[in-house]
Amino acid sequence: MRLAVINPNATASMSRSIAAAAGAAAAPDAEIVTLTNRAGPPSIQGVVDAAYAVPGLLGLIQAHEDVDAFVIACFDDTGLDAARSVAARPVVGIGEAACQVAKLIACRFSIITTLQRSVPVLRGNLEMRGLERSCASVLATGVPVLALENATKAVLAGIDAAVRQAIERDGAEAIVLGCAGMAPLAQSLSSKFDIPVVDGVASAVGLASTLVRMRLNTSRRGFYSGQRASPTGMPKTPRRQLS
Amino acid sequence: MRLAVINPNATASMSRSIAAAAGAAAAPDAEIVTLTNRAGPPSIQGVVDAAYAVPGLLGLIQAHEDVDAFVIACFDDTGLDAARSVAARPVVGIGEAACQVAKLIACRFSIITTLQRSVPVLRGNLEMRGLERSCASVLATGVPVLALENATKAVLAGIDAAVRQAIERDGAEAIVLGCAGMAPLAQSLSSKFDIPVVDGVASAVGLASTLVRMRLNTSRRGFYSGQRASPTGMPKTPRRQLS
Amino acid sequence: MRLAVINPNATASMSRSIAAAAGAAAAPDAEIVTLTNRAGPPSIQGVVDAAYAVPGLLGLIQAHEDVDAFVIACFDDTGLDAARSVAARPVVGIGEAACQVAKLIACRFSIITTLQRSVPVLRGNLEMRGLERSCASVLATGVPVLALENATKAVLAGIDAAVRQAIERDGAEAIVLGCAGMAPLAQSLSSKFDIPVVDGVASAVGLASTLVRMRLNTSRRGFYSGQRASPTGMPKTPRRQLS
Amino acid sequence: MRLAVINPNATASMSRSIAAAAGAAAAPDAEIVTLTNRAGPPSIQGVVDAAYAVPGLLGLIQAHEDVDAFVIACFDDTGLDAARSVAARPVVGIGEAACQVAKLIACRFSIITTLQRSVPVLRGNLEMRGLERSCASVLATGVPVLALENATKAVLAGIDAAVRQAIERDGAEAIVLGCAGMAPLAQSLSSKFDIPVVDGVASAVGLASTLVRMRLNTSRRGFYSGQRASPTGMPKTPRRQLS
Amino acid sequence: MRLAVINPNATASMSRSIAAAAGAAAAPDAEIVTLTNRAGPPSIQGVVDAAYAVPGLLGLIQAHEDVDAFVIACFDDTGLDAARSVAARPVVGIGEAACQVAKLIACRFSIITTLQRSVPVLRGNLEMRGLERSCASVLATGVPVLALENATKAVLAGIDAAVRQAIERDGAEAIVLGCAGMAPLAQSLSSKFDIPVVDGVASAVGLASTLVRMRLNTSRRGFYSGQRASPTGMPKTPRRQLS
Amino acid sequence: MRLAVINPNATASMSRSIAAAAGAAAAPDAEIVTLTNRAGPPSIQGVVDAAYAVPGLLGLIQAHEDVDAFVIACFDDTGLDAARSVAARPVVGIGEAACQVAKLIACRFSIITTLQRSVPVLRGNLEMRGLERSCASVLATGVPVLALENATKAVLAGIDAAVRQAIERDGAEAIVLGCAGMAPLAQSLSSKFDIPVVDGVASAVGLASTLVRMRLNTSRRGFYSGQRASPTGMPKTPRRQLS
Repeated sequence: MRLAVINPNATASMSRSIAAAAGAAAAPDAEIVTLTNRAGPPSIQGVVDAAYAVPGLLGLIQAHEDVDAFVIACFDDTGLDAARSVAARPVVGIGEAACQVAKLIACRFSIITTLQRSVPVLRGNLEMRGLERSCASVLATGVPVLALENATKAVLAGIDAAVRQAIERDGAEAIVLGCAGMAPLAQSLSSKFDIPVVDGVASAVGLASTLVRMRLNTSRRGFYSGQRASPTGMPKTPRRQLS
Repeated sequence: MRLAVINPNATASMSRSIAAAAGAAAAPDAEIVTLTNRAGPPSIQGVVDAAYAVPGLLGLIQAHEDVDAFVIACFDDTGLDAARSVAARPVVGIGEAACQVAKLIACRFSIITTLQRSVPVLRGNLEMRGLERSCASVLATGVPVLALENATKAVLAGIDAAVRQAIERDGAEAIVLGCAGMAPLAQSLSSKFDIPVVDGVASAVGLASTLVRMRLNTSRRGFYSGQRASPTGMPKTPRRQLS
Repeated sequence: MRLAVINPNATASMSRSIAAAAGAAAAPDAEIVTLTNRAGPPSIQGVVDAAYAVPGLLGLIQAHEDVDAFVIACFDDTGLDAARSVAARPVVGIGEAACQVAKLIACRFSIITTLQRSVPVLRGNLEMRGLERSCASVLATGVPVLALENATKAVLAGIDAAVRQAIERDGAEAIVLGCAGMAPLAQSLSSKFDIPVVDGVASAVGLASTLVRMRLNTSRRGFYSGQRASPTGMPKTPRRQLS
Repeated sequence: MRLAVINPNATASMSRSIAAAAGAAAAPDAEIVTLTNRAGPPSIQGVVDAAYAVPGLLGLIQAHEDVDAFVIACFDDTGLDAARSVAARPVVGIGEAACQVAKLIACRFSIITTLQRSVPVLRGNLEMRGLERSCASVLATGVPVLALENATKAVLAGIDAAVRQAIERDGAEAIVLGCAGMAPLAQSLSSKFDIPVVDGVASAVGLASTLVRMRLNTSRRGFYSGQRASPTGMPKTPRRQLS
Repeated sequence: MRLAVINPNATASMSRSIAAAAGAAAAPDAEIVTLTNRAGPPSIQGVVDAAYAVPGLLGLIQAHEDVDAFVIACFDDTGLDAARSVAARPVVGIGEAACQVAKLIACRFSIITTLQRSVPVLRGNLEMRGLERSCASVLATGVPVLALENATKAVLAGIDAAVRQAIERDGAEAIVLGCAGMAPLAQSLSSKFDIPVVDGVASAVGLASTLVRMRLNTSRRGFYSGQRASPTGMPKTPRRQLS
Repeated sequence: MRLAVINPNATASMSRSIAAAAGAAAAPDAEIVTLTNRAGPPSIQGVVDAAYAVPGLLGLIQAHEDVDAFVIACFDDTGLDAARSVAARPVVGIGEAACQVAKLIACRFSIITTLQRSVPVLRGNLEMRGLERSCASVLATGVPVLALENATKAVLAGIDAAVRQAIERDGAEAIVLGCAGMAPLAQSLSSKFDIPVVDGVASAVGLASTLVRMRLNTSRRGFYSGQRASPTGMPKTPRRQLS
């Protein structure tokens, strides 16, 4: 099977990191194709970045109908509902996937994310999925997404502090990494703190593979129906305004 | 005060209808400016249309910083969180406004909307706002947005049927019009069925005026903070793919 | 339009403060009439005071049918449902109004109130309206209502401490003033802490004006129906027992 | 032990029916004292009647400090929180008691009540107590409280129809009688429909006895604290306005 | 009436303590029969112990059909739904009973329990019953069940610390003892901390007596129906594996 | 990897059907071992059967520590928490797995199950997992588990009717098969009704494989901790009583 893992932002080095995480968790018969949304912002931090990322993301999905499933590799599941509506094949978000996987091994988990302004987005996603009671805390480290590459000691110390707080203060039984860029840290954090650490990219690859093996596709009844194509042409979307 | 009422879709005739509803409900000292999102789709029906509408909507808001408040005149509150994050002035969505107003005059209300695929979006918004228990039902009439202009007898009969079902079967005590294009029907439906009928455009104009009189603006702490400008340029967003 | 703002307690100086807050937020065409419930207790702090305040409040409403809308100026929305059931015109409570307005400009707000025993009442109201997840905290300052007039330095310091805790510990993005008597503090607290501060009296005047402009009245179907007049006379209600 | 069962309305014949239900369920060492709220309305149907009933109810409680516990015999638990705040001894409402008892013998129950306008009050109580998911339905028979005395065949047929609907359509596993005046019907309905039928008066007598045997009284910390006496005199509460 | 109070674990000294608590709270006409589940584990701490306790518990119930009601004297309400399904008479769990009783005298309560791993079980029970908002906290003392007999000073100090935290930090208005073995501590804790303290055994005896006086039995419709006897023989359940 | 799929009931023919469903969905490198709980009841229908099945199920898990993960192949996830507490390797239930998979392809799903008395168990599981809003309905076909083998025309017609009702009346966008014995029907129902149909066994094999590839195991912190071995021996569990 072929799985397309989409980086919804435009930063190619992040796509390479995502590809590595996806490959390590893939079954022997699963081929990973990594796509970068060149029309997206350099990183997705908050609802404004997300809004600008989605049209390009949908375009990528519509241009790659030859895969068996898609993974959207942004932890806030940017554009997931719209993606399911336009895609010919099933779509899994790494945020929903990581939380589902965490629930299989722990009663309550904490999410460690980047900036404070992502916290309400992640909380909203948890509530929408009925997982708010399963989440011990959503903790921002204050580390921007792109600082996770070539992480300094200070960055790593900030992440360690958040994990420790999640375990000791909030009673987390598992840690969910709340950003695709954190995947390389999973093993070392798990060893250091003796706790399961869940990466969303690997989780989503596992769930997407499951859908493919079960020959399941997004339902064409109800919510995701009738939106695969637009009945009329669209004028050009304007460039983002810089104030 | 000056209020900008934004039609997030590109259909100018719909903007004119919205302007009329806004004007009728405005205070004597409130001036209404109507803006049309020419970069948006012809109508917004479901999450895919919404995704394509938002970048243009944000651009419009950033280009009109000389008003006192903004209203987003699409009932699913397209792009509302992103709009609050980029706007210099407060922003009110007609979906949230109509539901707030309905709660002031009724214990339970029903929303009458256009197509079935909008129902889950509206239900999700209600749940996110804690209003699911206040909503007796969300009923789709099957009438597309643009068919509301120059409505045929069949269209009006479909809307009547939904209102009747909301009252008689679901116990609605008020009706919320779930589409900006339905505003002209408010008075006649209210008379015909002897029930309060709430239009979102008028509701949002009232709430936005309240914010202006109270000198309140969107909080710059937490969720809406730090996203007003992008630190880097963005490549051009691609055109929508037509499959 | 004429709006009757009712102080449900018997303290006339508090009515004057309420009148000032209402007037400052009113539209140019809105006339404010302030009514004092002389049959009420000197202040409303907790459910017992509230119980004794309601019959007089309902009497006031029934004696003033010549206004366009009513505002009940007590933050726990004393007698709101009964008021809607007997009133000929719409009724807005300042507690519900302030929370609605706060949601338009912030993701999560904190309520600063007077005594600890009011906290469960306010929490109950938030839950009933589905707003518990939007409320970062309800904080009691320990300051009785009537001590807010001619507030001492100690009183102001107590309020400052609560606001600081709401922002720093609880993550509040806006502050809601949980007592009609706190309205004069809104501007100074907002400046001092750089955060939106929402007063309920001004909020309710804005919402009531919106209802009047939209020609909406309380629904006569369901919850509020059939209770406008009693079929039989009532014996005299006894004086409150003082133990 | 002595238990005071209070009829919050002024109808003496209803007090006699309540006394009978209480006596039949009392332990051998429990003496029942029935009190009638002569200052209340003839019956309590909806929030307006309830508002006028509470001051008299609180007066009765304060005038009878020589009992071991109080029962408020109105199914909407009129004035229960205020009663707990002023009473020297514990207070049980028949609405809460009946629902608690029903949960001990059934997974889901239906409430059969009198008029439609009581339904939202009862639903609100269920939600406040976290019982909304345990309640299969709240059904109004359209029978006013006072028509339950000397019930006609039509009245009984209406009640039968509601019970049948609760069982067959809504899946109720037990029936809760949603009005103190329905107590005499419990045995015959239970036999006729082969389902447990729960009367609130008997339930509350049982729970109040349990509190007395356990020597438990209402907590004087938090919600119910500090409201037993008013610091100042109250002017006379006005008579109910008849419009 | 005869009430069977079942200790689901095999420790006879604990049964004696339970019998004392039950007897002290029983009505004059209630006879208490205490049964020990000799097939159960020595104590029930967590879901594994509970799983091994249930078959023996169900056997005891089926072997004692000559009583009027059953009480299951384990605070996590081990096997309660299965017990209701097989028992000829009503069944009350001490966990559900204590929480119901606590709600009659306090707005919010805290549960003091033994080990940390019982906390999620108790939280799950609270959520299932809609009581999570009524519970200020569930606090583990770290004291194993069997250490409660002949409690050392250190054990008592641990319990005192938890009660103090519940009151001062969490705002508990009543304390619920989260283990049948804690019943002897109720009076002294209540005096020491001036707060109502609720024991589950006494609570359940009171509620079970109420059911008997009301002649109510578990519903044979829906959830608890059709499971009283197995259609086929069962092979022998294996001994617990010790790894 | 080796996955142990456990049939918690004693019926060997059902184990063979489960083995077939598991094998069809397994990755090329996954070996399926099917285990039958010979100490269990012939089928698990309701909470009583479940209670008798768990001790044997836990014994099987402790006797097979040489696998990489376990699947419990009963849709009500019998004994799942206890199994996670004793197992050396991760454990997935087919009920939780099927609902997780359904959410990836549909907004709302319906569960088709066997007998009415299983419905409250499944509803309880949905609520505990926060999925009640995602579930359009839980429908009992009235078909006992063992009648699914060699299904008659009447049995198949009953299942068809439930699927049709889920789609047409309840708005289900996907169907979840609520019994391990229904797995062979997935493909034909999906074709017949043009809707995704989710089998739990295949879903759980996919999720368990994902955990193994991610090297994740059940957390040893909190809920599942400290229960792997009993500190003392257990007396023999008695045979089930047949009344």
